[in-house]
Amino acid sequence: MTKKSKSSALHNIEGVSQSEITNATSISKIQLKRKAKPTTQELISDIINGNITALSRAITLVESSNPKHLKQANDIIKGCLKHANASVRIGITGVPGVGKSTFIEAFGMHLTSNGKKVAVLAVDPSSSLSKGSILGDKTRMENLVKNENAFIRPSPSGTSLGGVARKTRETIILCEAAGFETIMIETVGVGQSETAVHSMVDFFLLLKLAGAGDELQGIKRGIIEMADAIAINKADGDNLKAAQLAKVEFNRALHLYPQKDSEWQPKVMLCSALKQEGIEELWKLIASYIEHTKTNNYFEHHRREQNKFWLLQTIEDRLKSDFFSQPKIKEALKLQLQLIEDGKTTPFAAAEYLLSL
Amino acid sequence: MTKKSKSSALHNIEGVSQSEITNATSISKIQLKRKAKPTTQELISDIINGNITALSRAITLVESSNPKHLKQANDIIKGCLKHANASVRIGITGVPGVGKSTFIEAFGMHLTSNGKKVAVLAVDPSSSLSKGSILGDKTRMENLVKNENAFIRPSPSGTSLGGVARKTRETIILCEAAGFETIMIETVGVGQSETAVHSMVDFFLLLKLAGAGDELQGIKRGIIEMADAIAINKADGDNLKAAQLAKVEFNRALHLYPQKDSEWQPKVMLCSALKQEGIEELWKLIASYIEHTKTNNYFEHHRREQNKFWLLQTIEDRLKSDFFSQPKIKEALKLQLQLIEDGKTTPFAAAEYLLSL
Repeated sequence: MTKKSKSSALHNIEGVSQSEITNATSISKIQLKRKAKPTTQELISDIINGNITALSRAITLVESSNPKHLKQANDIIKGCLKHANASVRIGITGVPGVGKSTFIEAFGMHLTSNGKKVAVLAVDPSSSLSKGSILGDKTRMENLVKNENAFIRPSPSGTSLGGVARKTRETIILCEAAGFETIMIETVGVGQSETAVHSMVDFFLLLKLAGAGDELQGIKRGIIEMADAIAINKADGDNLKAAQLAKVEFNRALHLYPQKDSEWQPKVMLCSALKQEGIEELWKLIASYIEHTKTNNYFEHHRREQNKFWLLQTIEDRLKSDFFSQPKIKEALKLQLQLIEDGKTTPFAAAEYLLSL
Repeated sequence: MTKKSKSSALHNIEGVSQSEITNATSISKIQLKRKAKPTTQELISDIINGNITALSRAITLVESSNPKHLKQANDIIKGCLKHANASVRIGITGVPGVGKSTFIEAFGMHLTSNGKKVAVLAVDPSSSLSKGSILGDKTRMENLVKNENAFIRPSPSGTSLGGVARKTRETIILCEAAGFETIMIETVGVGQSETAVHSMVDFFLLLKLAGAGDELQGIKRGIIEMADAIAINKADGDNLKAAQLAKVEFNRALHLYPQKDSEWQPKVMLCSALKQEGIEELWKLIASYIEHTKTNNYFEHHRREQNKFWLLQTIEDRLKSDFFSQPKIKEALKLQLQLIEDGKTTPFAAAEYLLSL
């Protein structure tokens, strides 16, 4: 807004008002130009009206590394903020092979058939490197991708988790402003990305398979304790008995953890995304979690804490990267690490020295 | 050293040499003075000779907040470094009531009776506040405290975990230089202090009780996965059967985690510190862990990684505290948090703004 009035003021000083320019140009030309490059205000109102093209365009701005785009993206997000937040954000993790895409397809179709609008996002910091990135291949969600009440967006690219997480988190706001009531955020069950996803969702779902041990499934330590529910997928046919056994075992494991701050006891469920079994039950479970946490005020409290976390996290990341990217620090750090290894200094003395440079 | 020659130079300039002063003063007076305030070099060689008084004095310097003491402490640590590192560092955690003191007493007595020198330290950031701090009451280790091959030092005081951890980590070096081959570091099973202790030890032991659920035992999530062994204490009398059941359950839980980097499969054991049962078996287990990790080179690798961790951690802590302690940042942070809460800005935009101040 400030920018716009500033710009008109500038035109006035030059003796040509904004309206004069508009009058001097043919209407159709303006419209064409607008279509090609909508203004920030236009994008905001189009997003709020549920326009998918505008939403996609804004996300592209969020994902851009061009500082000019970043400025516009920030303005759009600011404009969308008061229309955001009214959604359920669900994090979904599980190792490759667990059937995440099939599950999201089945879950998404179930929700849209109940009149809900569903957005599917992803956090995968490796996506720019590996070609087999999650959500990269939309063909694995062939029904959902054609569904007009569903919006699917692959992981933003980037090698730093912080950057990818920021982009996804801002994309959530845009999707919410565009009227998507359920946001699913997919990630893979390896590495740090679940922690990032966990801190941007209301409900965290871990998909597992029966039979294979956790070691084989490569689930990172600590993921299980993040889960608000574990869904044992592919619980059908010959697999059903093993899935039932796994359910008992996971239930026991979950009881080893102390009560969560949400006062929610994580549940284990069976499902078969392929046969669309257990999907409705899972949605009911999530709905009861939302009701539970809205009643005890954890829901709002948790979102506030997440905001605080991201504020502090962003600052910390920047402080660190600003410090360690200095050439003199890079050089000195190498030497200090060598001195520590040779038993000639301690980590604390080395840190003090580096901070004094 | 530099300090000493500087001081003699000063005396020479004033026309009075150090030797003249010495000659002018009675020998006994000088000796008394030396005894009261030993030099850095004297402290270093006394420590290396296993002098407990010198060790205690040096630890007091490490724990001091006086910058002059800090300088001397750093010099002493540097002098001790090449005599350190030849020990087994064992972290011990468990909630109050699990019998940590009794366990450490039994374990320490077992080791000293086998000719080993044992140091017992603690990390408890709350110790300066709460009177019931761990190790504060040495009477709970009445035999070990009288044992000349044991050295017991309560947690350094301090409200910041970083500060307490640094002091303890430097104290480890001093104890090692003084010939202590086994260092036990006790902490309580609540809060962040286990993570700090975990990153300064070779072996991490979790003490548990049978019967009471983990919820009741208040064990923080994530502690179990840090453990290289779980010892179920008070496994005697009527408690034995419950302890055996708990052992089976914990073994199952431990198998839910993927393999550790050390390639060590954590074990569950029973013990009764009171009846001194299972203590020898536990030491054998730790010895086999050390052998295992020295064979696969994890032991050295892990210590190097710990050093690197503490170097980076110390720098990060300082960068953060330097940033957030600025009055203008404190003020602006409050406002930005409010703006986030009111939905008027995003965590990322707020972070950018704060970093631009």
